Amino acid sequence: MDHIRGVFESYGFCSIETPSVEELDVLLAKGEVDKEIYAIQRLQAEEADKSESRLALHFDVTVPFARYVAQHFNDLDFPFKRYQMQRVWRGERPQDGRFREFYQCDIDVINVDNLPLHFDAEIPAVAMQCITGLNIGPVRLHVSNRKILDGYLAGLGLDDRVPVIRILDRFDKIGSDGVMKALNNELGMDLGLASKCLALASIQTGDTSFAGQVRDLGIEHETLTAGLDELSFVIDYLNRELPDADILADLSIARGFDYYTGTVYEGRFTEHPGFGSIIAGGRYDDLAGSYINRKLPGVGISIGLTRIFGKMVSEGTLPVGRKTPTEVLVVLPSEEKRTAVAETASQLRNRGFKVEMFHGPVKIARQIAYASKKGIPYVWFPPFDDGQEHEVKDMTTGVQQSADPANWTITA
Amino acid sequence: MDHIRGVFESYGFCSIETPSVEELDVLLAKGEVDKEIYAIQRLQAEEADKSESRLALHFDVTVPFARYVAQHFNDLDFPFKRYQMQRVWRGERPQDGRFREFYQCDIDVINVDNLPLHFDAEIPAVAMQCITGLNIGPVRLHVSNRKILDGYLAGLGLDDRVPVIRILDRFDKIGSDGVMKALNNELGMDLGLASKCLALASIQTGDTSFAGQVRDLGIEHETLTAGLDELSFVIDYLNRELPDADILADLSIARGFDYYTGTVYEGRFTEHPGFGSIIAGGRYDDLAGSYINRKLPGVGISIGLTRIFGKMVSEGTLPVGRKTPTEVLVVLPSEEKRTAVAETASQLRNRGFKVEMFHGPVKIARQIAYASKKGIPYVWFPPFDDGQEHEVKDMTTGVQQSADPANWTITA
Repeated sequence: MDHIRGVFESYGFCSIETPSVEELDVLLAKGEVDKEIYAIQRLQAEEADKSESRLALHFDVTVPFARYVAQHFNDLDFPFKRYQMQRVWRGERPQDGRFREFYQCDIDVINVDNLPLHFDAEIPAVAMQCITGLNIGPVRLHVSNRKILDGYLAGLGLDDRVPVIRILDRFDKIGSDGVMKALNNELGMDLGLASKCLALASIQTGDTSFAGQVRDLGIEHETLTAGLDELSFVIDYLNRELPDADILADLSIARGFDYYTGTVYEGRFTEHPGFGSIIAGGRYDDLAGSYINRKLPGVGISIGLTRIFGKMVSEGTLPVGRKTPTEVLVVLPSEEKRTAVAETASQLRNRGFKVEMFHGPVKIARQIAYASKKGIPYVWFPPFDDGQEHEVKDMTTGVQQSADPANWTITA
Repeated sequence: MDHIRGVFESYGFCSIETPSVEELDVLLAKGEVDKEIYAIQRLQAEEADKSESRLALHFDVTVPFARYVAQHFNDLDFPFKRYQMQRVWRGERPQDGRFREFYQCDIDVINVDNLPLHFDAEIPAVAMQCITGLNIGPVRLHVSNRKILDGYLAGLGLDDRVPVIRILDRFDKIGSDGVMKALNNELGMDLGLASKCLALASIQTGDTSFAGQVRDLGIEHETLTAGLDELSFVIDYLNRELPDADILADLSIARGFDYYTGTVYEGRFTEHPGFGSIIAGGRYDDLAGSYINRKLPGVGISIGLTRIFGKMVSEGTLPVGRKTPTEVLVVLPSEEKRTAVAETASQLRNRGFKVEMFHGPVKIARQIAYASKKGIPYVWFPPFDDGQEHEVKDMTTGVQQSADPANWTITA
């Protein structure tokens, strides 16, 4: 979390937190939500209280952020760039990589009236920089723009496009055959038209050559052209900014039921694409503006920290540190020395070291065993008798030598 | 929070987090709880689901920590010292200093069978060190030991002591007269006995002289003596470890309905004692052991971060930083320069600076105004034409001079 926070701040995002609890109306205001929401209620609530406005735990931090921007509109400077690292709750069936309570690390930019495309490119670059530093193996970022699918289908003369987009969005899970079958069986689409839809959704390129491939399909539509231009800008920027990252223009991506209207992102483990997305986001035209009758477009991305963490734990790839932050254990030789030992511990602590004083005058071997068990790297021996010197034992090398608490340092 | 975390780790406490949601049975297992609990339920839960074991949001992190220790007993090394900085929820009526969702910053030590008194003294010392570094004005730590009140009342021959302790615990709020009246009216205690109770509860000393004052009251009881010895040890340690801190042995303190059995702590603003406690804690004999049939005594303390934060915000004493972490805004002179400007921004970012690139090639004055509005201290001008040099403007002094992105540094 410290690493992610550092990357977020290096791009000028500031930290905010919002309550975990929002009014249910706020959470449901964006229409159809495919997230299972947890409502909360006081255990000892009277019947009368139950008619109060209902409260619920947020299922993401984007909707609460939009509420926040509207509420604090006059105090904010735009474009407003914030990050938020909080727990969210979804009442889903727990399974591998799917939790009911988990952390999301989000960045979003919201602006008034018009949000430059620059941010559509910057946002995923920040997320990919976070991921690279976590050393969790290769991650591929799939990028598209909803205007491409929507404009293309409009150009094909389709009026009811949402059900088609939902099927094409499952291309990575059900493949070409699955898409063809679903379009045909579920929507009654003829195979000729279905194959034209599939032709677009199966385009994947690492550079901006997707645009030429789409044009070769011969469909023209203003929205399609806008989407291709926007996606080209984003892919170009990402390839320049992150030459080593695995960036893929993937025209099947639509991000399901969510509130996105333009650029969409989905990052997956390159070698485990079936594990599900660990990065997700996109541009939304207006989540916040409806509260205050202003247009407040935004773009944002979320890193699924708990999902990543869970995979690392289950694979044993999470680097595990010592069992305690303690660097120095100060030995307590006898009850009489308690005051002097506490002073030595304080002195070392005030000099910036992480220090425990042993809690009781038990056998020295037991005190050393405690340090050893917890992985504390140095054991400090204050003078047992008058005239003796302080000594410190390096638990790694076993070397013990005299030391002065006023100027001792850890040598790497 | 970073400051508090730093102090916690400097004493060797390690970080854990537990879920916000626990089974209701776990939260209620400690008997009478005077905290209002929020239960949670899926909005779309079927009637059948409602018979599932009920879930609720934790009202503190001590009870979840006890559950955690029991659950991971075999993986932990004891004494186990942990800190936890999480939100908790209580269904109380919101008012000044009282929130329904708030942060608590807790440290606890749990050991097997027997927990040395050393930790009863270390725990409040750590909390007071946190408080001192927050610069929130003087805080007084009231310390007592439940055994003193309990043993003294037993020595007076009182069998039903809990109602008496509850009244004495309100001494700071209702005063001597209030305590006398309550003991007389609510419990029917005669004035002679009531004044003996009051005599103990009104003892407050900055050093260990409370012990002599109690002995002068002429009541003898084994539990009382144990309590006096324990409290003397704690007060002595605190006065030595924190010579400048405001530590008060205050024999009225009992911490109400909570699960404490020995030492108890309560910290308040010295100049605003009525604001309520901002530090609270104590020793509990056995919150965790019942799960695994072991004795697991602990001692812990909680810093009410949100309450402190709320007071600072309402008083305007919270130091407010810049509106963004950004240190350098890199100007975008024209669309053609976007790639070069992005490279300069990356170069500075890779050197450890927090850098924003301006999002669009608008008038330079507008870009500078953005930096000024957000308090960004440096504006970077990449070459507008070939052959020009990079320049950087210090927004505080107004000085603009040439600079090299490869070796420029911020001069304090």
